[in-house]
This record gives sequence, C-alpha cells and structure tokens, in this order.
Amino acid sequence: MVKNCSSQSVATAVREYEGVTRKHAIGEIIRSLHLDSPDVVASFGEDAAVIRKGDDALLLAADGIWNKLMEADPYWSGFCAVLVNIHDIAAMGGDALALVDILSFTDEELMHEVTRGMADAASRFGVPIVGGHLHPHTPYNVIDVAVLGSATLDSIIYSDRAEDGDAVIAAIDLNGRVHPSCAMNWDSVTMKDGATLRAQVKVMKTLGEGHLVTSAKDISNPGIIGTLGMLLEVSRKGAVIDLHAIPMPDLAAHGITFEHWVRMYPGMGFILTANQNHVDEVCRLFRDVGMAARVIGTINTTKELTITYQGNSSEVFDFSLDGILGSRDWCQSL
Amino acid sequence: MVKNCSSQSVATAVREYEGVTRKHAIGEIIRSLHLDSPDVVASFGEDAAVIRKGDDALLLAADGIWNKLMEADPYWSGFCAVLVNIHDIAAMGGDALALVDILSFTDEELMHEVTRGMADAASRFGVPIVGGHLHPHTPYNVIDVAVLGSATLDSIIYSDRAEDGDAVIAAIDLNGRVHPSCAMNWDSVTMKDGATLRAQVKVMKTLGEGHLVTSAKDISNPGIIGTLGMLLEVSRKGAVIDLHAIPMPDLAAHGITFEHWVRMYPGMGFILTANQNHVDEVCRLFRDVGMAARVIGTINTTKELTITYQGNSSEVFDFSLDGILGSRDWCQSL
Repeated sequence: MVKNCSSQSVATAVREYEGVTRKHAIGEIIRSLHLDSPDVVASFGEDAAVIRKGDDALLLAADGIWNKLMEADPYWSGFCAVLVNIHDIAAMGGDALALVDILSFTDEELMHEVTRGMADAASRFGVPIVGGHLHPHTPYNVIDVAVLGSATLDSIIYSDRAEDGDAVIAAIDLNGRVHPSCAMNWDSVTMKDGATLRAQVKVMKTLGEGHLVTSAKDISNPGIIGTLGMLLEVSRKGAVIDLHAIPMPDLAAHGITFEHWVRMYPGMGFILTANQNHVDEVCRLFRDVGMAARVIGTINTTKELTITYQGNSSEVFDFSLDGILGSRDWCQSL
Repeated sequence: MVKNCSSQSVATAVREYEGVTRKHAIGEIIRSLHLDSPDVVASFGEDAAVIRKGDDALLLAADGIWNKLMEADPYWSGFCAVLVNIHDIAAMGGDALALVDILSFTDEELMHEVTRGMADAASRFGVPIVGGHLHPHTPYNVIDVAVLGSATLDSIIYSDRAEDGDAVIAAIDLNGRVHPSCAMNWDSVTMKDGATLRAQVKVMKTLGEGHLVTSAKDISNPGIIGTLGMLLEVSRKGAVIDLHAIPMPDLAAHGITFEHWVRMYPGMGFILTANQNHVDEVCRLFRDVGMAARVIGTINTTKELTITYQGNSSEVFDFSLDGILGSRDWCQSL
C-alpha cells in the first residue's frame, strides 16, 4: 500500500508537473514546420521519425538536456543526453547506429564533465558518437544530441496505435537510486555494465520483431503517467490505470513519496500497450533482463486518462478538451 | 585587381578571424569521444559522418547557429541552421533526407522567427523537418539542427583525400548580397527559388557519382581560405593559392574589402580538389547552375597553406606545427 496517497493528489501532481506542462508549446511549432514528404512514414508525436528506405526504415531523433539538469550535474546530464536518444530509438523497436552532438559552452570544466558522461554512456550502449558541432565561448552551456537508428519497416513500434481493450504495461528497472544531484531522476543505469544495459534496450527490438505490442514510448521527463498520457493523446484513446499496480522501488527506503515516484524520469523504463494474449510474454521478456513489468490498466475509447486507487478514481487528462502536446489539431493534419 | 590588399594582410586576417580560431577546441573533445566501430567509415573531420549500411552509406551531421547570428537576425539564423546542414550532406556527395531540430528558447517571438526561417529553407530545399525537441522557458535562445542523408558508398566525397598536384577549385554563387543584418554573411540564397537551390547542391552529387573530384568541403564560417585550411589539415597536404583567382563579386559595389570577402560565409560555396584532367568539367557543372567556379591554386606535399598576390607570398597555416582543428594527434589515432 502507498501511504498518504489519493488518486486526486496524484492526478494533480502529474497534471501540474513542469515536465508535463512544458510539452504544450510543441503543437504550435509543429504546425509551422510541417512539410509533406512521401518517404516520411511518421514524424512528430513519435519518439523518433521514421523514414522509408526500401524495406528498411531509418529512424532519426534529437533530444536536448534541460539546463537545470546540466547545472545540477554535468556528468549525469551528458550521460542522459546519450541515454534519452538511445531510448528514443529503442522505443520504436530499432537499433541505434550513431550519435552526433552539438555542444555550446561558456564553462570549459563543465563541458569536460558533460563530455565524459556522454562518452561513458555511448561506450556502455556501444553506440558511437560520430561527429557534431562545437560552439566554444557562448554565453550559455547547452548539450543537444541527435541519433540515427534503423529497423525493418515491418517491425517498428509506434506511439499512436494503442487499441481498445489493450493492456497497459509499465516496464521499469527498479534496481537503482534517486540520483544524488537530481531528485526527479531515478538512476538505474550508471551502476550497470554495458551488457545489462544493451540487453534491456534490446527487449524493445524483440517486441517489435515479434509484433507483441501495439504501441510504446520510453518513459521520459513527464514520468510514468505523463508519458502514458502522450501515448493516449496521439493514439486518440483513453485508459483507466490502477496506481497500486505501478512498479515501484521501496519508496520509504529511498525517502520519496508516490507522487514523486510517478513523476520521475526512471532512467530505464517503457510504457507499452499489448493485446491481452501477449501480456505474459511481454512481461517475461522484461523480467529476464532485470526489469519490473506489470499490467497497470486497460485502454478504452474515452479519450480520458483516469487513475484509480482503493476505490477512488480521478481524471488526469481529457484529450477531447486539451492535450499534453497540444496535438488535437496537428494530429488530424498529419 | 584587388585594392589595398597584400598577401600578408589577408594571411593575418584569416588566421586571426574568430570563425577560424574557435575551431581549435574541437581536437580535445574528439579525443575524449572516440569509440571504435566497424561500420563507421568516417566521422570527425568530415562534414558528415559516414555509416556503412550494405552498399549504401548513411550520412549524419549536426550544426548549431552562433548565438551572435541568432540575436542579429532570428529568421536568417533559422534559415542558416537548415542551410548549413544541407550543405554538410551535399559536400559529401549525398542526398539530404530529413532534418531534426532542438529549440531552446526564452523569447517566444524570436523563436517564431527562427522557425519561419527553418521552414522556408526546408521547403525550398525539399528536405522535411521530421521531429526534434523543444525546450521552452530556458534562460537562452539556441537552435541546433541535425540532418540525415544517404549516398552509395562508392560515390562519397571525403575531405581528407586531396592529392599532390590536384587543382584547388572554389565554387561560389556570387549573385547575392552582404546580408543586411550580418556583415560576415554573403546571402545568395534567400532570393533564389527552390529549383535553383536544389540544382546547385545537386552538382556535388553529380561530382561524387562521376568521381570528378578528390575531396571537397562546403565553405562554412571560417570562409574560403579557412575552409581550404581545414581540408588541407585532414588531407595532410599543403597548397599554394593565388588570391587574384578567388571568385568574388564587385566588392566596391557591395562596400566590402577583399580581406572581408575571403572570411565571409558565402551562403552557397564549396572548396574542391580535382585531378587537372577533370577541372574543366567540374567548373562547367557549377557554371551551369549559376555559380562562379575557378582554379585558385594547386595541392602540394608541404603541409603549409601559402597565398600569393602580385608576386608576394605569405604562409597562412603550417599544419606541421599546429592545425585549425588541432587535429595533429587525433587524425593519426582515427
């Protein structure tokens, strides 16, 4: 049982979390950048864009690191800059092939720590950093990374294909720690060896090739519920989830509340939807690589995300009114 | 004839130009990021990294925009963010397939102008922006872009293959203007239609497929001579070039000096090296798309870049002592 927790307190905590609210501006930018192209199979709203090349698909994504994180811990921010990009490709069922980075810095010492974090992550995941661009002497420190991946077109996992009646599965590596310099980050990666980390992300490729899930996203800054919200928004579906079922570490031992846990960036975590027939196999594949994986709810057609806890229920998002990504218009135009 | 110009004054102007000196920090970062990978055919030192995929090559590059440019002209900085990435792929003889961007902004109005510039450039070159990442509410405005391209492995043009005795060719679109908000930028692009711009970058693909050049780079912030310097550094060669032969617009009419011209970012320009037998065909292909193209010198084995003007000569760089990219060590280790 989770102490001092109600479905309402969690709904409010998730809805008002900066990791969620800062996604709002995306919709407007997307509308202005849209350009039709026959080889672009998927773009905005997915963790990585999908570009057709024969029977293969090329995957392209980019992610930057929040300046707050970089100031708090340059090494971890560099590590995360690589990690989130590798997760963007993994979430689509692809193989990450190469990374490029753009470093802008005013503080050379800080940038060396960022670079050390990037190099460590790249080396453990076995994905080379192959180039990029360097801006010394800027009035700010910024690290942005882009990633190239590939997959067969047929095995790609999209975010927007959740189906009515699917199970919602959360898969998270609980073997970690609250990051000492970033309370909103669950670090389950810096203490793991490369073989473990590669096996964990490879599960997503196995799921794609086996057509075992209908949709997935890596759990990013908006946390477990916020990330599920984005998946529902682009899938134009709703869900009811049971807070009690969400995988969690020993919260008291780590000194955090449940509201805190569900908003954390979990280091290595995915939200997936699957036909009920595939649930056992999906969960088993994650457990085989040391991750907790559990059904936390069911997809429905309401366009609302509702959370339940001990008989109470609260609505977190109503996508028929407003979305996390502000995608109501651009989803229809893409 | 160029007025008030000596080989010495140009050598000093190029060597001390911030566009050149800010490249120094690259070497140190590269050494710390290097990771061996059998499918990475080329990485640092090239305009785009080359990743083997069967008989094809995937090209990946990233570029950011100098904050000074963004403050001076947000629309033009957005246009350039796309332009320089498309040039990175073109310089390798490839096709640009898709772009991703990472926007960090504090000033929403400015970011809309940046986005408008990006969308305009992407649309004219016909390369879709397929995703990326948005950081609202950062304490700075930054735009970083990455690009995915492709080519057949056999037709790629590298920077580091200049050969002793090759002609050095400069190809530049002189039909333009000093950009009204950025004196160091020659804008030959915003007034051109998409068909013209696409034909200009496509020349590089034709050169690669026909094996008509030994090496090339797009002319970037370090300007004509600085960019040639980077090509010589990674090729471990030298060159003697004749300032008089460098293509230039009517400098007096545009109110700029020759020292200014050779340091400008020329909007649409390439430095190439070619066997003397191919010079006429290479220059003709550029002239057919409205670009000035001329032999400006010859590659030698000295590892020095020397410029001559009216019988005087001056050394700009001696790569046996120090490089623009600080590449003396990492070139050998890669």
